Amino acid sequence: MALSRTFPVLSLALAVSAATAADLPVRPSAGEIIKTSQPSDWRPLDVNNTLYMELPGGRVVIELAPDFAPQAVANIKTLAKEHYYDGLAVNRSQDNYVAQWGDPNGETNPKSLGSAKAKVPGEFSVPMSNDKHFVLQKDFDGYAPQIGHSNGFPVGRDPKARTTWLAHCYGMVGVGRDNETDSGSGAELYAVNGHAPRHLDRNITVVGRVVSGMPLLATLPRGGDTMGFYGPKETRAPIISVRLASDVPEAERSHLEVMRSDAAIYQKVIEAQRNRGGPWNKYAANYVELCNTTIPVREQPKP
Amino acid sequence: MALSRTFPVLSLALAVSAATAADLPVRPSAGEIIKTSQPSDWRPLDVNNTLYMELPGGRVVIELAPDFAPQAVANIKTLAKEHYYDGLAVNRSQDNYVAQWGDPNGETNPKSLGSAKAKVPGEFSVPMSNDKHFVLQKDFDGYAPQIGHSNGFPVGRDPKARTTWLAHCYGMVGVGRDNETDSGSGAELYAVNGHAPRHLDRNITVVGRVVSGMPLLATLPRGGDTMGFYGPKETRAPIISVRLASDVPEAERSHLEVMRSDAAIYQKVIEAQRNRGGPWNKYAANYVELCNTTIPVREQPKP
Repeated sequence: MALSRTFPVLSLALAVSAATAADLPVRPSAGEIIKTSQPSDWRPLDVNNTLYMELPGGRVVIELAPDFAPQAVANIKTLAKEHYYDGLAVNRSQDNYVAQWGDPNGETNPKSLGSAKAKVPGEFSVPMSNDKHFVLQKDFDGYAPQIGHSNGFPVGRDPKARTTWLAHCYGMVGVGRDNETDSGSGAELYAVNGHAPRHLDRNITVVGRVVSGMPLLATLPRGGDTMGFYGPKETRAPIISVRLASDVPEAERSHLEVMRSDAAIYQKVIEAQRNRGGPWNKYAANYVELCNTTIPVREQPKP
Repeated sequence: MALSRTFPVLSLALAVSAATAADLPVRPSAGEIIKTSQPSDWRPLDVNNTLYMELPGGRVVIELAPDFAPQAVANIKTLAKEHYYDGLAVNRSQDNYVAQWGDPNGETNPKSLGSAKAKVPGEFSVPMSNDKHFVLQKDFDGYAPQIGHSNGFPVGRDPKARTTWLAHCYGMVGVGRDNETDSGSGAELYAVNGHAPRHLDRNITVVGRVVSGMPLLATLPRGGDTMGFYGPKETRAPIISVRLASDVPEAERSHLEVMRSDAAIYQKVIEAQRNRGGPWNKYAANYVELCNTTIPVREQPKP
């Protein structure tokens, strides 16, 4: 059955297949561990820190991280409340890098930012004291002295400098800027659509994570201009609206919850990714990179 | 100019912008170093080890790596020569993981493999002596005792076991298999479309790299079934044909060349990615992950 659908996740139906020379012990997969979670292992998204970006293909849900970027998140919430993003567009889709959205006429005839600030100080890292939820991940990381997870986000930190920051993993959302550190307002945002560009860590204000709808951004046609910007003749995905979830009627909200990254079960999920079991796997890495430890998101179970 | 197009690549036009507290020295970017390359720093793709996969949207060019998977590459070349892949489809598109192609009826009414083998021994790693072109990358890697580049491919190796293997970076192409190590024939292949799933290293036969056309695979709609497989009602991208470049008339070939990963300039490219300069960058990581060091590909200059 060389063409079966078992690759690359363990199919339980085949768990009794022939042994090989390199058999690993069978261990529960991350997915199997997640299935054993309790309701208390999850938390709902905070409607006051969740954005809905409506694209023609559907909704992108972004969880904001005010602990890591208080000023930028506040400005973005102002922009959303005043409907700044409505009618703007995704202007850039660079393969294996970022999709970026904002004002397509920003350089020639920019839309007013309303009561939002045009410049926000860079929040490339913040004091460790901002972070009340950090749990260390023991694996080595080349981009940060320490890594871990905080309240549903992948983070790096430097215990000597006593700073912490959000890591540029797949789906993380950051603030486009020019050369000046305060030149980003949140009017122009991007989401990582490929291999983590971790060199951007501590160079950009990261404000949150796409927790649902990332395929809508990841599958956009790549732009033909420099750095994946769309050229004048290319079609851009329009942004219908961006709203704070709390400003959306209850019946129209997405009811998602995120695994608590400080719950004990999440450490088991990471360990299952660090050392995968047989029979499909033949070699266990005994290592998992920060950006391969995606924090689970699911629909809230019906009460 | 908060919405300008300078993010995140250095715009030379802005190189004289105001200094900040954290200014890094200005250094040539990877792109600027590549522009100083000499013709001898590049090699054309070998037409006997290059596949053209024609999709409705265009051509995907795959460079095969016979040094790392001699038996699988030979079988794939047989399949291509006998037009096995023609009329098959991309059957799976899983967000931030892989796009996978092969026989959509493989489980129910499989197409004949012709004179190709149905099973090929796993070539998850090969003797280091297979690799005549390895250049060490000094950065730490959690998935391999050593990393580097070999003849245009990212590789891991274990000097104690004297083995080497291709790393699962973005765009790398591998052989789908079932639980048995010899259950992959190359009839079912996949390309990495997201953050590198390096835990697959040494668990899969990797046969090459997409050197052009990766956006065609990366932007495919994600499949709605388990693991991103397309459900029965979803539209799959059909494969028009897969040909070895040497079987395609000269006038219809893609004329691409790859930077020689053992050329001195390539070490400069890596160093430019390891320590990026100002004025845009404020913090230099002094580190670059293996899968962030993409080997340059370009159109062959006209003679």
